[in-house]
Amino acid sequence: MREINVLSPATVANFVCGFDVLGFALNEPCDEMTVRLRADSEIKIINLSDYDLPTEPEKNVAGAALIALQKSLETLIGFDVEIKKNIKPGSGIGSSAASAGGAVVAANFLLDNKFSKQELVAFAMNGEVIASGVKHADNVAPCILGGVTLVRSSNPLDVVTLSAPPLFVTVLHPQIEIRTSDARAILSEKVLLKNAVRQWGNVAALVAGLMKGDYDLIGRSMEDYLIEPVRKILIPAFDEIKTKSKQAGALGGGISGSGPSIFMLSKDEQTAKEIEKEMCAIYTRIGVEFHSYVTSINNEGVKVCH
Amino acid sequence: MREINVLSPATVANFVCGFDVLGFALNEPCDEMTVRLRADSEIKIINLSDYDLPTEPEKNVAGAALIALQKSLETLIGFDVEIKKNIKPGSGIGSSAASAGGAVVAANFLLDNKFSKQELVAFAMNGEVIASGVKHADNVAPCILGGVTLVRSSNPLDVVTLSAPPLFVTVLHPQIEIRTSDARAILSEKVLLKNAVRQWGNVAALVAGLMKGDYDLIGRSMEDYLIEPVRKILIPAFDEIKTKSKQAGALGGGISGSGPSIFMLSKDEQTAKEIEKEMCAIYTRIGVEFHSYVTSINNEGVKVCH
Repeated sequence: MREINVLSPATVANFVCGFDVLGFALNEPCDEMTVRLRADSEIKIINLSDYDLPTEPEKNVAGAALIALQKSLETLIGFDVEIKKNIKPGSGIGSSAASAGGAVVAANFLLDNKFSKQELVAFAMNGEVIASGVKHADNVAPCILGGVTLVRSSNPLDVVTLSAPPLFVTVLHPQIEIRTSDARAILSEKVLLKNAVRQWGNVAALVAGLMKGDYDLIGRSMEDYLIEPVRKILIPAFDEIKTKSKQAGALGGGISGSGPSIFMLSKDEQTAKEIEKEMCAIYTRIGVEFHSYVTSINNEGVKVCH
Repeated sequence: MREINVLSPATVANFVCGFDVLGFALNEPCDEMTVRLRADSEIKIINLSDYDLPTEPEKNVAGAALIALQKSLETLIGFDVEIKKNIKPGSGIGSSAASAGGAVVAANFLLDNKFSKQELVAFAMNGEVIASGVKHADNVAPCILGGVTLVRSSNPLDVVTLSAPPLFVTVLHPQIEIRTSDARAILSEKVLLKNAVRQWGNVAALVAGLMKGDYDLIGRSMEDYLIEPVRKILIPAFDEIKTKSKQAGALGGGISGSGPSIFMLSKDEQTAKEIEKEMCAIYTRIGVEFHSYVTSINNEGVKVCH
């Protein structure tokens, strides 16, 4: 029986000013998944996690992504999918995208890489519909492609990979729940054109900074005039975390996805660890449970383990 | 008496999706200017153009830019400025920026390049206030710096130069008048967030396309969901010009500045000339007077002629 193990990474979407378009993959945490070809056409989800996951394929993000992939095959092929989730659902660092992205990359490996990575992103987006009701690529694109990705358009899908200098990432995951749908609902449908202009000036500069490897420009560009001011009220001590992180040397950062996780970027690991200390001190003081990570941008995406 | 001649180029601001932030310089047309140091502290404007220009320094764009530069000098120095405008005022290809940018670059040369180019951009912005009432850098930045420029922020001023592959530019200048203030007034103060997201997805992709030298991506990214749909009604046959230009091989294009000029980008000069033929045929048919240019992106900015 042919099977393959993959490590599917956490991801940060809504990269500050790049709301809904820019994201990147993290080296940690990763979900561990094993996918096996079946003799029949079924999709069977086996949950090895501590978290309660739906195991009906249509209701499971990995299952829904594989169903989309199946539909592009000439002969129906079934898969067993074992999932050990290390990325807590609802953390805001792409837990559902990791399941969906990992499943399709693993299946594609077993199918002798029949599909392109862009096609895999399109399949995985069907998993995101299950998780959040929106067919978006913000997390599945960096999860599958690695590095920093730009979703120019979701429909038709147009994903661009961006080069970036080495960047270390500190993530604080407050143990509170923010539903993606609630985080969407509090945003206004309309924004001021003048603020939108400031936002796309920053988005353009962030892309230029990443591609030039200009850390100062990356730092100056990480300003979000539209989303962060609204959503930060959902995250305890957000402003203090940001101020103290910058004082400790962070280039900048913001809300990961629709929260509650917060991320900060640094040029070096030492600074990223200092920032983690500051974050932990604040959350310990205010008494909100949390997890924290110091990691770096993952340039590979889902890792196939031979 | 020390004097210098400069050629100050036309520029395209509001580079499609990059409204208010992205612009580039053209190799043609250019204003011709001569600047001389004076023995006193006066600024004297000498108009050698066919166009009527104010000669009181405070009311002249070159004069206002030089007054700003003067204020940063320890001792007041005066200048004679001869202006032969080849860029028609109100054409939408940065006529006022060329006067302001040319004047400060020439003056700076006579002052042994005392100021950085970013400082010169800041001085020249004072000329733009005279012309349009808004202190913007969209045209003066590419005029002075050359190439494609990004104004991340106007206040504080933060200008980023972007690398780009060779690009040919076809410009159609309908001989109609659109006041910048009118073109501003017809825009709504608010826009839909979902359209703003599409816009900054395209802005980000356009920057990536330029820096990667990826012509296809540049072409796909030249979509403007917010400004062009509103402003194009001011320009006769805009949609037909765009459609026919693309059929003739244009990567894309749009309204230059706040119009009335239209620009289209091409990979090669032959295509740019084909596009010019199409544009001219349409305007000849509908009976609107026009000028047209085939040129390329100017990577040097204001040229000091020794």
